[in-house]
Amino acid sequence: MNKLEELKKIIDSLNNFAIVSHTSPDGDSMGSILSLYNLLIDLNKNVDVFVEGQAPYKFSYLSGFYNIKNISQSNSRYDCLFVLDCGDEDRLGECKDLLNRTDIIINIDHHITNNSFGNINIIDAKASSVGEILFELYKNLNYKITKEIAECLYTSIVSDTGGFKFSNTSSKTMRIVADLIDTGINFTNIYYRIMDLKTLNGIKLISKVTSTLKIYLDGKVATMKLTKQMLEECQTKEDEAGELVNIVRDIESVEVGILIKEVDIDTYKISFRSKDYFDVKDIALKYGGGGHIKAAGCTIKNKSIDEIEKELIDEIKKAWVKYNEWNN
Amino acid sequence: MNKLEELKKIIDSLNNFAIVSHTSPDGDSMGSILSLYNLLIDLNKNVDVFVEGQAPYKFSYLSGFYNIKNISQSNSRYDCLFVLDCGDEDRLGECKDLLNRTDIIINIDHHITNNSFGNINIIDAKASSVGEILFELYKNLNYKITKEIAECLYTSIVSDTGGFKFSNTSSKTMRIVADLIDTGINFTNIYYRIMDLKTLNGIKLISKVTSTLKIYLDGKVATMKLTKQMLEECQTKEDEAGELVNIVRDIESVEVGILIKEVDIDTYKISFRSKDYFDVKDIALKYGGGGHIKAAGCTIKNKSIDEIEKELIDEIKKAWVKYNEWNN
Ligand SMILES: [Mn+2]
Ligand SMILES: [Mn+2]
Repeated sequence: MNKLEELKKIIDSLNNFAIVSHTSPDGDSMGSILSLYNLLIDLNKNVDVFVEGQAPYKFSYLSGFYNIKNISQSNSRYDCLFVLDCGDEDRLGECKDLLNRTDIIINIDHHITNNSFGNINIIDAKASSVGEILFELYKNLNYKITKEIAECLYTSIVSDTGGFKFSNTSSKTMRIVADLIDTGINFTNIYYRIMDLKTLNGIKLISKVTSTLKIYLDGKVATMKLTKQMLEECQTKEDEAGELVNIVRDIESVEVGILIKEVDIDTYKISFRSKDYFDVKDIALKYGGGGHIKAAGCTIKNKSIDEIEKELIDEIKKAWVKYNEWNN
Repeated sequence: MNKLEELKKIIDSLNNFAIVSHTSPDGDSMGSILSLYNLLIDLNKNVDVFVEGQAPYKFSYLSGFYNIKNISQSNSRYDCLFVLDCGDEDRLGECKDLLNRTDIIINIDHHITNNSFGNINIIDAKASSVGEILFELYKNLNYKITKEIAECLYTSIVSDTGGFKFSNTSSKTMRIVADLIDTGINFTNIYYRIMDLKTLNGIKLISKVTSTLKIYLDGKVATMKLTKQMLEECQTKEDEAGELVNIVRDIESVEVGILIKEVDIDTYKISFRSKDYFDVKDIALKYGGGGHIKAAGCTIKNKSIDEIEKELIDEIKKAWVKYNEWNN
């Protein structure tokens, strides 16, 4: 019996299901668990769907959102637990307890690091998202993909592909999205909610950080600064600031973008990004950091933010001279 | 003989072709004309491809870009002229003269307003882009869609669909993109160049404008201001500022976003955007403006920018009270 037949038998023969994903669920988690929730409800099963803490309100447009349970609301046992988009047991956080309260664990994921903790493991590291894997499973099992389920799966795919732009997007992904669009979903609305909406504090932070923009080497290098005061004034946490360095790199003329982030008194975390050819890892290594050619970082202590900026620009200038010597 | 057969006969039997699109060419123009240029070159035809003025350097990664001619460089006659993505003859600008220098005009477009000025007119207002129409033509005529041609067509489609998010994106669009991806193009790179790259001055302007962000009615209304001084300091033109009002609307809590733009001494153009339900046209109408429920505008003179802001917020508050009265 192959996995598909096993899965079919489990869904047909059992009645009490639970569904869960990783902590701090993202769009793929939310779309995946709610697609399966809707599918099992359509099949007249008893289903509990769990999220650790509060489910992100951003996804409240998805059918089933208001039925999501907090783990503290239940101590039931289940015939079968689906764990979606979750590389290992620890990423379940408080929901890990569910693993002890089920007869069968079905682990469906696209993380290459997944440790196959389930009784049945359906892992496809080539899939853009768990939503993509589920679409194929539902199709192959001849389950009806309703508009509600399609909205969930579109949410999964658009989230994990960054709006069909990341390299995990394949022609298969696009054909699945075509089929989802054919169900009549309002995909422009979902795209807007997932990709275009920004938080007020996020916009405030972007405004402050971009106001520090400085340009060097005829626009080939640019820096921005992020201070603790900015984070406080915008009531944002550091991890929300993760994408800021991309703003610098994404300026047309820029090859090397740098974000200098204050993390403590006289302690700065530096993020480097390059666009095409400059090896930023080499610069980061000089300060005990590391990374890749196009993305690297390091920490610098006991210098002022202006000293650091000057020093980094000097280092990059030197490296550029060498680069040009080798390439001419 | 249907249009496809006519087209086939023309391409097979004739030798000297010209290709052109509208002035200030966008991604669909550039992708379309260069896809056809590459195709006709592959068929060993003589081809001249024209753009009024300078072709935008942004598209220099497309094969054939450096062969684009300026109209002043040629006074040849052609057997056949392809006009792509162009609703009427006047949108050809200086290139309009080409219409007098050809035996046959083939007009391929997706603008519903196209006035069918060609000898053969292939107009499909349902197509997301001319790139989409051309893909189907090439397929149906059994021409080989090389990687170079696929890069051009992907550029067309991603540009005119705003990265597959506008409502002109159909399931057919997505299936075509899937086929283009299957040719092995580096679509992530093209997506990045078209959708994510920003100009330095554009980022500076966003920084300044977002720093004026003000929030009213518990975050349901937000305003931003754009002064002439900002445009000067950022060396940007007003038309580059067109999308700024969307930044306000795209804040999560916001239902009504307002951009107050200084256009002259004591003269301000106001842009209104609403997200879901608030009728901004009603507010604009009070000031002699107009528009739609979700997008409207007006001009206000002889008041200071702060007076205008206060007045608009008061008007919106009043309208909101009425709205709530009717909906409770
Ligand atoms: Mn995922
Ligand atoms: Mn177009």
